[in-house]
Amino acid sequence: MKSIAVIVLVAAVACGSGSALAQFSKPDDAIKYRKSVMFVMQQHFSRVLSMTAGKTPFDADIAAENIRVADFMAKLAWVAFAEGTEKGDTRAKAEIWTEPSRFKEIADLTQAELGRLAIAIRTNSMEDIRLAVRAAAMTCQTCHDAFRKD
Amino acid sequence: MKSIAVIVLVAAVACGSGSALAQFSKPDDAIKYRKSVMFVMQQHFSRVLSMTAGKTPFDADIAAENIRVADFMAKLAWVAFAEGTEKGDTRAKAEIWTEPSRFKEIADLTQAELGRLAIAIRTNSMEDIRLAVRAAAMTCQTCHDAFRKD
Repeated sequence: MKSIAVIVLVAAVACGSGSALAQFSKPDDAIKYRKSVMFVMQQHFSRVLSMTAGKTPFDADIAAENIRVADFMAKLAWVAFAEGTEKGDTRAKAEIWTEPSRFKEIADLTQAELGRLAIAIRTNSMEDIRLAVRAAAMTCQTCHDAFRKD
Repeated sequence: MKSIAVIVLVAAVACGSGSALAQFSKPDDAIKYRKSVMFVMQQHFSRVLSMTAGKTPFDADIAAENIRVADFMAKLAWVAFAEGTEKGDTRAKAEIWTEPSRFKEIADLTQAELGRLAIAIRTNSMEDIRLAVRAAAMTCQTCHDAFRKD
């Protein structure tokens, strides 16, 4: 196994404990890692989305648990957009590395919206929850539109 | 998107909040989910393994943070070994579903060893930590030997 220490410059700042976790032995591991994290996050977020869209029955405990996991996963993702991981089996756009402050801004916003969603779920107000879900989904979409290839 | 509710019988018991999270819209999602979770877990666990093997400098804070994430990920994994997810892009052996109590036993043991490792790291005793890492690694290996195809 090649042991290249991938240096994290861009995204570690988006997450407090980021640099402590940023030790990928090769660029492909970082790519696979962020895709794995994003998939797990999406699975949990989509369950809440499905509830607020009325497709599945709303259950506050299940929603809160899924948001807790989505929020945890999101915190892991950013450090894996490390320098040297632009190429490979990835849909990441070059803009992540050429416009790092814009990427960081949207990453921070996504994280903040997930935090707000976790609070909104505790209010038990379906209208608040629905708005918070929509705001979080919008930051996901904004980031994907700007930084992910179709 | 096909919306088949995957019923969890085997593995939900391994994790308290399991059933609340077990809502995969299709079997392939459950398979991709558990592979993603396992990969993220392995990445974090291997960083601690590398430290205790003397391949990277030991740092208690980084080790603890990585164990915290590995432990969190492990808790997510079990529910995704749901009935109806035996076939597809997976190396899971049929024994997971034909010997569920043995699978649950090893799953519970793995989780317990990760918990013990989290405690060991706080002792700051390299010998304790090394032993706990070895015990946790052994449960991973035991599970893979018994329930994962080569």
